[in-house]
Amino acid sequence: MAVSKNVKLPHLFYGGDYNPEQWPEEVWHEDMRLMKQAGVNIVSVGIFSWSLLQPSPEAYDFAWMDRLMDLLAENGIYADLATATASPPAWLAKLHPESLPVDENGARYMQGSRQHYCPNSAAFREYGQALVRKLAERYKDHPALAMWHINNEYGCHISRCYCEACTEKFREWLQRRYGTIEELNSRWGTNFWSQKYYDWSEIGLPGKTPTYANPGQQLDYSRFMSDSLLDAYLGEYRVLREITPNLPIMTNLMGAFKPLDEFEWAKHMDVVTWDSYPEPTAGIPVLAAMQHDLMRSLKGGDPFILMEQVTSQVNWRLQNPVKRPGIMRLWSYQAVARGGDGVMFFQWRQSRAGAEKFHGAMVSHTGDENSRVYREVRQLGNELKRLDAIVDSRVEAEAAIVFDWHNWWALELDSKPSRDVHYIEQVKQYYKPLFEANIGVDFVPPSADLSKYKLVIAPALYMVKPGEADNLETYVRQGGTLLLTFFSGIVDENDRIHLGGYPAPFRSLLGLTVEEFDPMLPGQTNGLTAAENSGAGGVYRCDLWADVIRLEGAEALASFTGDFFAGSPAVTRHRFGQGCAYYVGTQPEEAFTARLLGSIAEEVGLKAPLQAPPGVEVTVRAKDGNRYVFVLNHLQETAEIRLPAGEHPELIRGVKVQDVLKLEPNGAAIIRI
Amino acid sequence: MAVSKNVKLPHLFYGGDYNPEQWPEEVWHEDMRLMKQAGVNIVSVGIFSWSLLQPSPEAYDFAWMDRLMDLLAENGIYADLATATASPPAWLAKLHPESLPVDENGARYMQGSRQHYCPNSAAFREYGQALVRKLAERYKDHPALAMWHINNEYGCHISRCYCEACTEKFREWLQRRYGTIEELNSRWGTNFWSQKYYDWSEIGLPGKTPTYANPGQQLDYSRFMSDSLLDAYLGEYRVLREITPNLPIMTNLMGAFKPLDEFEWAKHMDVVTWDSYPEPTAGIPVLAAMQHDLMRSLKGGDPFILMEQVTSQVNWRLQNPVKRPGIMRLWSYQAVARGGDGVMFFQWRQSRAGAEKFHGAMVSHTGDENSRVYREVRQLGNELKRLDAIVDSRVEAEAAIVFDWHNWWALELDSKPSRDVHYIEQVKQYYKPLFEANIGVDFVPPSADLSKYKLVIAPALYMVKPGEADNLETYVRQGGTLLLTFFSGIVDENDRIHLGGYPAPFRSLLGLTVEEFDPMLPGQTNGLTAAENSGAGGVYRCDLWADVIRLEGAEALASFTGDFFAGSPAVTRHRFGQGCAYYVGTQPEEAFTARLLGSIAEEVGLKAPLQAPPGVEVTVRAKDGNRYVFVLNHLQETAEIRLPAGEHPELIRGVKVQDVLKLEPNGAAIIRI
Amino acid sequence: MAVSKNVKLPHLFYGGDYNPEQWPEEVWHEDMRLMKQAGVNIVSVGIFSWSLLQPSPEAYDFAWMDRLMDLLAENGIYADLATATASPPAWLAKLHPESLPVDENGARYMQGSRQHYCPNSAAFREYGQALVRKLAERYKDHPALAMWHINNEYGCHISRCYCEACTEKFREWLQRRYGTIEELNSRWGTNFWSQKYYDWSEIGLPGKTPTYANPGQQLDYSRFMSDSLLDAYLGEYRVLREITPNLPIMTNLMGAFKPLDEFEWAKHMDVVTWDSYPEPTAGIPVLAAMQHDLMRSLKGGDPFILMEQVTSQVNWRLQNPVKRPGIMRLWSYQAVARGGDGVMFFQWRQSRAGAEKFHGAMVSHTGDENSRVYREVRQLGNELKRLDAIVDSRVEAEAAIVFDWHNWWALELDSKPSRDVHYIEQVKQYYKPLFEANIGVDFVPPSADLSKYKLVIAPALYMVKPGEADNLETYVRQGGTLLLTFFSGIVDENDRIHLGGYPAPFRSLLGLTVEEFDPMLPGQTNGLTAAENSGAGGVYRCDLWADVIRLEGAEALASFTGDFFAGSPAVTRHRFGQGCAYYVGTQPEEAFTARLLGSIAEEVGLKAPLQAPPGVEVTVRAKDGNRYVFVLNHLQETAEIRLPAGEHPELIRGVKVQDVLKLEPNGAAIIRI
Repeated sequence: MAVSKNVKLPHLFYGGDYNPEQWPEEVWHEDMRLMKQAGVNIVSVGIFSWSLLQPSPEAYDFAWMDRLMDLLAENGIYADLATATASPPAWLAKLHPESLPVDENGARYMQGSRQHYCPNSAAFREYGQALVRKLAERYKDHPALAMWHINNEYGCHISRCYCEACTEKFREWLQRRYGTIEELNSRWGTNFWSQKYYDWSEIGLPGKTPTYANPGQQLDYSRFMSDSLLDAYLGEYRVLREITPNLPIMTNLMGAFKPLDEFEWAKHMDVVTWDSYPEPTAGIPVLAAMQHDLMRSLKGGDPFILMEQVTSQVNWRLQNPVKRPGIMRLWSYQAVARGGDGVMFFQWRQSRAGAEKFHGAMVSHTGDENSRVYREVRQLGNELKRLDAIVDSRVEAEAAIVFDWHNWWALELDSKPSRDVHYIEQVKQYYKPLFEANIGVDFVPPSADLSKYKLVIAPALYMVKPGEADNLETYVRQGGTLLLTFFSGIVDENDRIHLGGYPAPFRSLLGLTVEEFDPMLPGQTNGLTAAENSGAGGVYRCDLWADVIRLEGAEALASFTGDFFAGSPAVTRHRFGQGCAYYVGTQPEEAFTARLLGSIAEEVGLKAPLQAPPGVEVTVRAKDGNRYVFVLNHLQETAEIRLPAGEHPELIRGVKVQDVLKLEPNGAAIIRI
Repeated sequence: MAVSKNVKLPHLFYGGDYNPEQWPEEVWHEDMRLMKQAGVNIVSVGIFSWSLLQPSPEAYDFAWMDRLMDLLAENGIYADLATATASPPAWLAKLHPESLPVDENGARYMQGSRQHYCPNSAAFREYGQALVRKLAERYKDHPALAMWHINNEYGCHISRCYCEACTEKFREWLQRRYGTIEELNSRWGTNFWSQKYYDWSEIGLPGKTPTYANPGQQLDYSRFMSDSLLDAYLGEYRVLREITPNLPIMTNLMGAFKPLDEFEWAKHMDVVTWDSYPEPTAGIPVLAAMQHDLMRSLKGGDPFILMEQVTSQVNWRLQNPVKRPGIMRLWSYQAVARGGDGVMFFQWRQSRAGAEKFHGAMVSHTGDENSRVYREVRQLGNELKRLDAIVDSRVEAEAAIVFDWHNWWALELDSKPSRDVHYIEQVKQYYKPLFEANIGVDFVPPSADLSKYKLVIAPALYMVKPGEADNLETYVRQGGTLLLTFFSGIVDENDRIHLGGYPAPFRSLLGLTVEEFDPMLPGQTNGLTAAENSGAGGVYRCDLWADVIRLEGAEALASFTGDFFAGSPAVTRHRFGQGCAYYVGTQPEEAFTARLLGSIAEEVGLKAPLQAPPGVEVTVRAKDGNRYVFVLNHLQETAEIRLPAGEHPELIRGVKVQDVLKLEPNGAAIIRI
Repeated sequence: MAVSKNVKLPHLFYGGDYNPEQWPEEVWHEDMRLMKQAGVNIVSVGIFSWSLLQPSPEAYDFAWMDRLMDLLAENGIYADLATATASPPAWLAKLHPESLPVDENGARYMQGSRQHYCPNSAAFREYGQALVRKLAERYKDHPALAMWHINNEYGCHISRCYCEACTEKFREWLQRRYGTIEELNSRWGTNFWSQKYYDWSEIGLPGKTPTYANPGQQLDYSRFMSDSLLDAYLGEYRVLREITPNLPIMTNLMGAFKPLDEFEWAKHMDVVTWDSYPEPTAGIPVLAAMQHDLMRSLKGGDPFILMEQVTSQVNWRLQNPVKRPGIMRLWSYQAVARGGDGVMFFQWRQSRAGAEKFHGAMVSHTGDENSRVYREVRQLGNELKRLDAIVDSRVEAEAAIVFDWHNWWALELDSKPSRDVHYIEQVKQYYKPLFEANIGVDFVPPSADLSKYKLVIAPALYMVKPGEADNLETYVRQGGTLLLTFFSGIVDENDRIHLGGYPAPFRSLLGLTVEEFDPMLPGQTNGLTAAENSGAGGVYRCDLWADVIRLEGAEALASFTGDFFAGSPAVTRHRFGQGCAYYVGTQPEEAFTARLLGSIAEEVGLKAPLQAPPGVEVTVRAKDGNRYVFVLNHLQETAEIRLPAGEHPELIRGVKVQDVLKLEPNGAAIIRI
C-alpha cells in the first residue's frame, strides 16, 4: 500500500483510533492479531499522547512510540500519525496558565479534561510546533507512516476564547482586514449605539455585553476564531510539509460544524476527513448523508475519509442506545456510497478508564472477538477488501446546493426577525427531498462556477457578498435553474442591509419585491394554494415565515390562504435570460417542497440512477468508464429493485445479479453497470 | 409651537427617534421631506451620539449636530435633544475600565453593545455631566430645542451592579437611611443566620451568596439601585436646569418597570414619557392600557408622551411578527385615549447596520414612502393634526388601584410561600375587569389621598409601610369602598412580619383573621361557592392561593368548596365606619372577579361613559368643560355604539355623528359630548 | 433526665431549634410557658449565633447565652447546644476574604446569607475552633447542657469549593491516598486524553473544564470534599471531646444527602440526627421512610433523632402548601416507628425577619397558642410523654438494601450510557415494594456482614470495590438470597472498568454475561414476559435500560418481548452454593417488582408483623422482650387491622385493644404485643 500526497489509495482505508498507551504492551500483540483478522489496514495513533511523549518542557520520550510504529510496520498496518497537540500536558497549563482559554465572562478554563488551550496562545503554539518537529524528524522515513493527522476535532469544545492574546490578535486581524479604523467603523456601522472607535486598542471581543453586541463585530469574531484555529493548524502543517513534503496532511473535521469555515480549511488539507455520529435510532440518516456530500464537496468531489464513527453506542448523549445489528455496516456503506474512500472508528479498543470508557469501540470491554460488535467489524472489514475498484472514483451529481459558512454565522446572529430560522434546517428542507428522490447533490460556495449543474438551490442565502449575486444571475441568464428562499439577499458581508427593497440583489433576477416579512409563532401556520403549473397543485400547510410579495415580472405558483396577505404570492417563478428563477417565500410542508422539486427536476432533466422504493438509497460512483451503483436498503423488509437489462456484477458479495436486485433489510449492494 | 417647562403643548407630539448620524447628509434632506409629509413635529436626537460628539476625553465635535439642529429649525421640526449619555464611547471604557458594570458573580461587562456603565461610576458621571454642560450651553437658545431627553431607558439592561463603587455607595446610602449600625441590624433582622454587623465596612451587596441573601438587604439594594440610577439622572438634570431653567426635562421610562420607583422618579421629571412595546399579535393590549394609566398617574393625571413604540415589528422577541394593518394606528389612539399627549416611535428611519436593523421604523428599508408602514404613519400623523383640542385634557377616573414599587420588590423576593405570586399579574387580575367594563382607573401609591375615589383596590399589598394602613382605614371609615386581596398586610417597610395574626394592620378594617395560607401547586384548583349577596352568586374555580379565614365581624360572600378548609370563607365583606372593606382570599377565576367588581361598581355608582359591546374600549378626556369620548374598536367586525341624544362632532374624521356610532374593525373615534 | 454519651434517653426528645436572640427577652418567658405546655424537653440553641457571641476577633459576649441557659435549666428544658459555626460573622469575611468559598468558575461567594465558608479555610477553622473551646469551657458543667450540636447541615449549600486552599489540600489528600504520582496516574487512567501528571503540583480540581473532567479525578474530588467537611467537623469534635468527654456530640445530617459519606461520618457521631422535609402533599412519604431506615442504619440500628422537620409549610419550594391537619403528627410517628428516639422541629417560634420567616414553626406568627399548628404540636408533645417504654428499642428488619455513597458518586458521574439512572430512584424501586409490604429493611454498606439477613438487594451497584464482590458471593454461597440489578459490577473504586465481560465481578455468582446494554429513550418501553416460576407470571412493561444477557448457568424468569434482543432473558435466577442470586436487567414496572419481591419474600420467609390494608404502615420496635407494633393509617378513611388473639395495650391513647384495631384517617397506634 502506497499513500501519496494526493491520496490515491489502492484500498479503502479501514481501521480506527488506536491508543495502546492505555494498555500494557502484551495487549498490543493481541491487538495486532485482532486487527488483521478484522481487515484493519490503518490506525490513527498518538492523538492524545503529548503528555506521554513529552514529560517536561525539556524532555521527550519516543521509546514507546518507536516500538508501536515498528509493531505496526511488522504487521502491515499503516499509521495515521497524529501530531499529539489535541490536549496539552498538565505541566504546560501550570507553566503557562495564560495558555488556557477564557470564556465570555472572563473565567478561565482548567486542565483535567481535553482541548484546554487557546488557539492563539504563543506558548501552546511554540511547544506544540516543537513537538511536531521532533515527531516529523523522527518518523519521516518510518515504513508505517502513511499520513499526518494534525491535532483533533479543532474547536469541538473550545471554539471561542476571550483571553488577552485573542483580544490583541483580533485587533491585528481587523487591521489587516480593514486597513483603517474609519473603514472598520463604516463596516460595523458604529454610529449606531455610540460604538465609534478612534483607535484599534479600543476594540474588544464581543463577550459579556449588556445586550446584543455589534453584529459586524460578532460576525468578524466568528471569522477571526475560524482563522485563529486554522492558523494554529497551519503552524503545524508548515513544519510537516517542510520535513515530509510528500506525505498527506489533514485534520479531522466534524461535518456541518459551524465554527470552522471548512471550504477555507479544505484548501490546506490533502484529504478531507471527518467524524460522523448520527442519532443511532432516529431512522434513515439523512443528515449524515448530507454531511457526506458536504465533506466530499469541500475539495470539489475528491473522496473523503470517514475518520471516526462508533460501532455501537456513544457516551455523550443523554441516553445512548446501541446501533441495531446491521446498522453500522449499512451506514458505513452510505459513507462509501457518497464519496468515502475509508471507514474508520473511534476507537480500536474500548478504554478501561477515562471519560470515554462507555464509548463503543471495535473491540469491546470483553477484550476479545466475543462480541456482536467485533463480529460486525470483522465482517465489514473483510467485505471492504473486495472494493479496491471503488477507490478514487467520483460521485455523480447534477444538482447543487449553495452552502456558505459566513452566511451561517450571519443568519444565526441575534436580533433577527425570528430566532427559529436555522441554517442547517433550511438547507435540509431542500436536501431531503432530493436525497429521497436519489438525485445526487453537490454543495458549492456562492461564488462557485455553477455552469455544470442543472439545478442550483440556495436556501436562506441571507448574506450576499460582492460578486455572488452576479454569479447566480449569470448562471440563470445562461440557462440555469435557480431556487431561492425567504430571507435571502438581505445583507452584505458585514451584515449591513442591502438597501433598496428586499431582496435587493435578487429583485430583478426573481422579478419581485418582498414588501414585509412576517415570522410566525411556534405552532402557527398559514396555508398555500398551489396552482397546477407549479407541478404541485393543491392545498398545503406552511409555517415559520411569510413574505409579503409584490410581483414585478414573476408569476405566482402558490399563494397564501390566510392572514392579511391572503391571496398574495408565496412561491414564484421568473423566466430570466435562458433560465429560470424560483422563489419560496415561506417554509412549506415537506410534501409541497418534494412535489415542487420533483416537477423542477423533471423539467431540467434530473433523475435517479435507478428506480427504487422509498427507503432505498441509490448513488453512483464512477471511474475509468465504470459506473458503480450503490443500493442501500434502509427498510426493515426486503426491497426489490429493477436493474437495467443484462447481468451485472455485485461487488460486495462477489456475485452476478440480473433483472431484479433483492436486498435484505439493512442490506447493501454495489452493482457495476 | 411653544413648549414650556410645564409642557402645555398646542399640538400632540408626533415623531420619533432620529439618528441621522447613521446616514449620509444627503439622506437628511429626504428625511425632512418625508417627515413633513407625515406630520412629524418633533424628533428625538442625539440619544446614542456620545462617541460621535466627543471623539476623545479632550475633544468635542458638534459641527454635525449644529447642521442637524439648524436643518430641523428650518423645517419647523422641534428637537427633543438627548444628553447622549445612554452609551459611553469606547475610549471611556478603555480609560476607565472600572466604569463598566459588574454582575453578581463579579464578572465585568464589556463595551461593544450599549448601556455599559455603572450608574455609580465617578468617571461615567463626570464625563457625562461635562458633555451635558457642553450641549446645554451650545444649544440652550437654539430655536429647534423643545425639550431635554436625559439618557435613555435607565436600567433597561443594567439595573444592578456589584462593583466596588456600588458597594461603597451602598454603605453610605445605608448610613444615611439608618444612622446607626444597631438600627440597620434591627431593620434587617441580622440576628437571624448570624448576620450581625458591627461596622458599615462589613456590609456587602446581596450578590453571589450560598443561598437566600438577607431579605432586608435585598430590598434595600433594590431601593439603592433605583436611587443610584435616579442620582445619575439628577446629576444631568441639575446641569440642564441650571442652564435652561425653563425647558422641560425628562427621561423615557419603560412602563411598569420593576427596577425604578417611578413615582419617585416622576417628581423629577417635567413630563412623563415612556416606551411601549406590547405583544403585537396577542389581542387587545390590556397591559399596555394599564401602563398608560400608570404612566398618567405618575404625575397625578398630567398627560404623558408615548416616546417610543414600533410601527411594525421589533427585533428582540424570539419571533417578531408585524403589527397587522390598522393596529399601529388603533394602539396609538389608545395611548391618547388614556392620557397621551404625543405619539412617537423608535425610530424614524430603519437602520442599515447594527443590532436594531430589523427593528421597524417610520421609514422602512425601502428608504422612501413606498411601504405599508409609511402610509400608515402618514395617515396617523395627519389625523393627529386635527386633535389640538385634546391637548392637556384630563382622563376621567373614579376608581383607583394602589400600586407601590417597594411592595413589588418585597413581594417578589425569594423564600416566599409561593413564587407564583407576581405583582403585575395580581394587579392585572383587577385592572382587566375594570378595563373591560370601560371604568376609568388611576393608579395611586398607598399613602395617597383616596377621598376622591368611589372604589379603591389594593391587590397583593404585601408590604404596609408606616401610615399606609391608617390611610386605607381612614378612607373606608369616611365612606370609601376598599378591596384587598390575599397575602396583604404581611410585612413592614423592611420586610419584617407585622406580628399579631395576618393581616395584622388590616384585621380590624377587614373584620377577620387569616389563620394560615396555603399556596396551591400549578394546575391545582379549589372551588368557590358565592352567595347571591356577593352579586356573583354561583360556583367558580380558584387557584394559586387559599387563605384559611376566621371571621371577626366580616360576612362571607363566597366560601371554598374543597380541601380541609371547605366551607370556610374565601371572599368577605365588612361594613366599617361609613364604608366597606372587601377581602378576596384566593385567586378567583376571571368571571367571578368581573361579576364581583361589577356588583361593587353598581353599588358605589361607577359606570362606563357609554355602553359598548365587549372589545370596544371607551375613555373620556375632559378639558374646559368639554368631554371627549374616545371609542376604539378592537374587534375584527364593525361595532355599533349608541350615543347620547343629539348630534356630536367626531374629531378624527371631522364629521358629525348622531344616535349610533358605527366603527369599522380597528376603528377609532373621538366624540365631543 | 440524664443524657449520657451513649444517649440512653429516658424520654423521647421533643422540641426544636430555639433562636431567642431574634426576640426581646420578655418573649423568652412566654416561650418557657408555651414549651412546657407543649411537652418540650429539649431545644437546640446557638446554631446561628456566632456573630452575636463574638462581636470581633478579640471579643466574646456570652452574657445573653448565660441567661438563656439558666432560664432553660430553671424550666427543666435541656439544651442541645450548638457550636455556632454554621455561619461565620461578617467581620471574618472582611478580615479573611479567602475564607469565602469559590465556585467552579472561580467566582467567590459573598457574605450575607449563610454557610459562606470554605471547609478547608484555615481562618474559618481557627476562629471556629477557638469559639468552640470558649463555649465548651463555659458551659461544660451547666445543668441545662445535654448534648453538643456541631455546626449545621454540613454541605447543604456549599458542598464543593474550588479555592486555592482546597486545591492545595486536594493534592495532599491525593498524596496520602496514592503515595506516588505513578499510582495516581494508573488509578485515574491519565494516559487517556493526555492527562498524565509528573508532579503533584500539576493537579487541579475538576472545575471549569472544556468537557468531561477525568472521572477518577471527579470521584476523588467527591471523596475529598466529604472528607474536608468531615475534617472541619472533627476539628470541633476533638475540642468538645477533650473538654466534655462524656457528653454526646453530633451534627444534623440531611438524610440521603449525596455530598457526605454518612456511613463514614456516623463513626464520629454519638447519635445520628437528621432533618426531614418530605413533599407535604405528595401522598405517603415513602422516601422519608426510606431515609429514616437509612439514618437508623448508619450506626447499625441505634435510634436516631429527627432533629428538624416542619410543623406546617416550608419556604424554599416553588410552592409551599401546608401539611394537612394530622399529617405532622402521623409523620412524626413514622419517624419513631422507624427508629426515631426524638421528634424535633425547625424551629420553635416563627421568625419575624430574615430568609426563613415564612418557614413554619411550633409557634406561629400569631405568637401564642392560638393556631392549628400549636394545637397539634401540644397534642403530639403530650402524647409522646407516654412513650418512655419505646426509648432505645430496636427496629426489627430481616431484609437489607446495600447502599454506598461511593457508588452513588460514581454512578452519577457524567459520560455514562444513560444520564437517567439515578441512584436514589433505583434504590427506591426496590425499597417501595418492601415498604408497602411492611417488611422491615436495613441499609448496609457493601462490605457489611450480611449473614443475619434473609434477603439482600443491591440496586445499581455500579461500583464494586476490593472485597465487596467476595462479600456478596460468600453471603449467597452460605445460603443468602441476593438480588442485583442492571449496570452493576461495572467499575472498581477508581471508576475503571472491571474487564472480562459485564458484570465481571458477579458473572459466576449470577451465572450470566451481559453482552451489551441498551439504554432506552424517555418514553420508550419494552415488554417483559414473566414465567410462572418467577412468582410474577404475566406480561409487563419495562423501560430505562435493557441488558442483552447470555445465560451461563442462570435460568430466565422473564424475557424481553421486543427489539432485536426479543426473547432474551431480562430477569434471571441462579442457585449458587446454598443460596440464590437474582438479576434484573431492566427497570420493570412497579407491579412486576412487587410481585417478584413478594415471591422471593415468601420463599425466604420474610413477612409483615401484621396483615394490614394497603396504605397502612406497620413496623416493630423491640426492647427487653417486648415488641411494640406501630400502626400508621395513611388513608383518608378508617382502617381495620386484625390483631393477634388477646388484649393488647395501646400506648398512645393508653387503652387496651382486642381483635381488631380501628384507626381513624391519619391515625397512629402503638400496640405492645
